[in-house]
Amino acid sequence: MGFSEQLKEMVASVDGAVACSVMGFDGIAVETHNAEIAMAQTADLELSNAWVEYSNLLQQLKKAAAENLKTGPISELSVNTEKVLTVMRMVNQDYFVVMGLLPTGNYGKARYVLRLGAPKLAKELV
Amino acid sequence: MGFSEQLKEMVASVDGAVACSVMGFDGIAVETHNAEIAMAQTADLELSNAWVEYSNLLQQLKKAAAENLKTGPISELSVNTEKVLTVMRMVNQDYFVVMGLLPTGNYGKARYVLRLGAPKLAKELV
Repeated sequence: MGFSEQLKEMVASVDGAVACSVMGFDGIAVETHNAEIAMAQTADLELSNAWVEYSNLLQQLKKAAAENLKTGPISELSVNTEKVLTVMRMVNQDYFVVMGLLPTGNYGKARYVLRLGAPKLAKELV
Repeated sequence: MGFSEQLKEMVASVDGAVACSVMGFDGIAVETHNAEIAMAQTADLELSNAWVEYSNLLQQLKKAAAENLKTGPISELSVNTEKVLTVMRMVNQDYFVVMGLLPTGNYGKARYVLRLGAPKLAKELV
């Protein structure tokens, strides 16, 4: 199963999920799946712009964790606003997976699905 | 009820919570409550250093959200590692509340307690 199918399955398995991407820390998406049903509700949020910003922060966090902090490597980052919840999970040293969901979406399930999905995506990224 | 009591109550109500602070975006804590029982397990994590780093990121995020992003103001940020989960919630324009918990702690409860606690802390900060 390729990226596209994996991302599609991940989006389908989380209530309220609107999009899921595999991204590099440079903010460039390798692959994205958008939930069609939710696009009308979220098009004006310009999620891809937010994700570029978040990838930059995640990159900084990763660096700080490696160089200055004693809390261990970052495994997950979540940035939530009133309009959209965003969960990011590390895939490997170069990539992470990100899912956006509606505020009413199943946040716990999103975390679970990313945790399980990240190692599978890592295998594809070799 | 002052800050100190509020933070103490918040820590007490979340399984696995190790500390809770009200902090400025400059990374300076106004007040902190540490759960005594957990301190031995987390002293080597140097949480206060991590929280200074996170406050810097939260500051950047707040600025980006206000200036460049269409996803709305940041309400919550969570940075999780294998050793410690950290949930931050905006209190007002100048302060946020942060809780650290063990990876086995009740993450959902921590989010809930911060969401409910933030407006109460905001009243104290006037």
